[in-house]
Amino acid sequence: MRAGFSSEAEIIRHIRRTVVRTTRQLVLPIGDDAAAFRPRPGRLLLVSTDALVEGVHFDLDYCSAEDTGWKALAVNLSDIAAMGGTPLFATTSIAVPREVISGFVPRFYRGLAALARQHAVTLIGGDSCRSRQGIFVDVTIIGDVQPAHLSTRQGARPGDSIYVTGELGRSAIGLELLTRPGKKTWRSAAVRRHLRPQPRCFAGRYLAERKLASAMIDLSDGLSTDLGHLCKQSGVGADLELSQIPTATITDRERRSLSNAPLHYALHGGEDYELLFTVPSRVGRQVPLYIDGLPVRRIGQITQGAGLWLCDGARRRRLKASGFDHFTEW
Amino acid sequence: MRAGFSSEAEIIRHIRRTVVRTTRQLVLPIGDDAAAFRPRPGRLLLVSTDALVEGVHFDLDYCSAEDTGWKALAVNLSDIAAMGGTPLFATTSIAVPREVISGFVPRFYRGLAALARQHAVTLIGGDSCRSRQGIFVDVTIIGDVQPAHLSTRQGARPGDSIYVTGELGRSAIGLELLTRPGKKTWRSAAVRRHLRPQPRCFAGRYLAERKLASAMIDLSDGLSTDLGHLCKQSGVGADLELSQIPTATITDRERRSLSNAPLHYALHGGEDYELLFTVPSRVGRQVPLYIDGLPVRRIGQITQGAGLWLCDGARRRRLKASGFDHFTEW
Repeated sequence: MRAGFSSEAEIIRHIRRTVVRTTRQLVLPIGDDAAAFRPRPGRLLLVSTDALVEGVHFDLDYCSAEDTGWKALAVNLSDIAAMGGTPLFATTSIAVPREVISGFVPRFYRGLAALARQHAVTLIGGDSCRSRQGIFVDVTIIGDVQPAHLSTRQGARPGDSIYVTGELGRSAIGLELLTRPGKKTWRSAAVRRHLRPQPRCFAGRYLAERKLASAMIDLSDGLSTDLGHLCKQSGVGADLELSQIPTATITDRERRSLSNAPLHYALHGGEDYELLFTVPSRVGRQVPLYIDGLPVRRIGQITQGAGLWLCDGARRRRLKASGFDHFTEW
Repeated sequence: MRAGFSSEAEIIRHIRRTVVRTTRQLVLPIGDDAAAFRPRPGRLLLVSTDALVEGVHFDLDYCSAEDTGWKALAVNLSDIAAMGGTPLFATTSIAVPREVISGFVPRFYRGLAALARQHAVTLIGGDSCRSRQGIFVDVTIIGDVQPAHLSTRQGARPGDSIYVTGELGRSAIGLELLTRPGKKTWRSAAVRRHLRPQPRCFAGRYLAERKLASAMIDLSDGLSTDLGHLCKQSGVGADLELSQIPTATITDRERRSLSNAPLHYALHGGEDYELLFTVPSRVGRQVPLYIDGLPVRRIGQITQGAGLWLCDGARRRRLKASGFDHFTEW
């Protein structure tokens, strides 16, 4: 028994205090065998789950417990954003070694709560247990969407334009700055993007409600990998315009300490959690340059032929998926 | 890269083949950023999540990958059963060390699929990643229930009778038989109960639809602990009749090799996943002796005073919660 928590019931009380909102939809909050809520009439429910594993997705050397809580929710909110949906409820499952429970658990929920408040998400379930080694965090997110606004990976058609939000590669640059030997650069914007990614829920809904996106995916594994997923599921290919890729803005000092050029991180770096979407030409002019301050950039076009191509003026070279895949990275 | 799976996409294809059913409710199955389903009109959605951690909840020395898959789903189905609901969809999140991926993952899903088929549950999300050490499995279950049939832990009133389904303590006996030094007794019914618990979804729905249960909980942590949860959340106490506790039927040989009497396991042993529920006296006569072959036994009465008491004829002694709590067991 540790200072801070002496039982699972205490953890649930802590969660109630820090993370639980009340909404009219919620009939039975956290604390029973299951939570119960009233779905909004006529809407589709969206469900997604994503885990973070210590030593694989994060490391407490450079990622605080608060960062881990924030990120565990952020990666899931990003999936709801990519469907054009509104996040509503989350459940968490965490397993932690006994040495870190009182240091980790309340700070984890503090970080998660900070992001949950920004997106009006209510925590409705939480399983806490010990692990023998390593921290394991899993979040399941439930959201909803009007059926007509559902954005999948499957609707891209040849001739559609390809767009992204924000800048690409910042998170991967941040990770490299955090993990290189020697002095850490905590205050870099890239580092902050890696530790506290901002899911693009507003932009996702904006695009979905106006039916601008024929297909949409969030960039979790890197542009080359995620564009590959979208193209494969839509049965199409893509031409990207090299000059249009929005690479990350970094300082000269940061650039000197990186092992690759910014374009490399923009093409293959994971965890930006920006949105990648395709737009049919008939509505192309309705895509704004910014959505609520977030830049939106046209970076290429969907093609009939298979495969991804990177176009630099007249030169075309094949773009291989080189982002993150948990089973090929082994 | 291992034989069996070379990418996450392959794991998703494997899941599609083995676990995914099609239902009219499901609009978008596993494989996109999120799954989408159409909730049934007028119903409440139920959500619960439970994790299994290697070395804490299971050990591959005595629990196969199939058993782990079965159990990971079973413990979650049991939560839906305790709410009087119908399970519909599940998501899984598994982290496994590289050495065991091809041995563990397909067999895990085979075990999970066997139980999912029995309860018509569709897998709509799955995150697979590696861990540095140890296997982590998390399942989130989504079910639904008619609002009038929702059974919580909060409705027990003084004078209500207390009932349980099945026999208690079998799972804890099975665990002791599996983990004692020397020869393992694989074919024991108690061992099977520990490895392949059967969630009482039918009985839960039966009781809820007839509005027989004023409060209900599933027995995951042991009778003394879970009855304590139910009483605390209902603001009541309980008298249990010692002679009525349905202890596990075991062989003489099994009894000789156990460190405690069967009553001890029945009172404090976890993971039986039977249902514990309270019934107001006005409907007490409607509770059947069996629900679909499963025995139902009256074991005591809810009282006004706080605390749990064990009554043996005229003798009364206090029953302390001594079941499983992940944070006090540390």
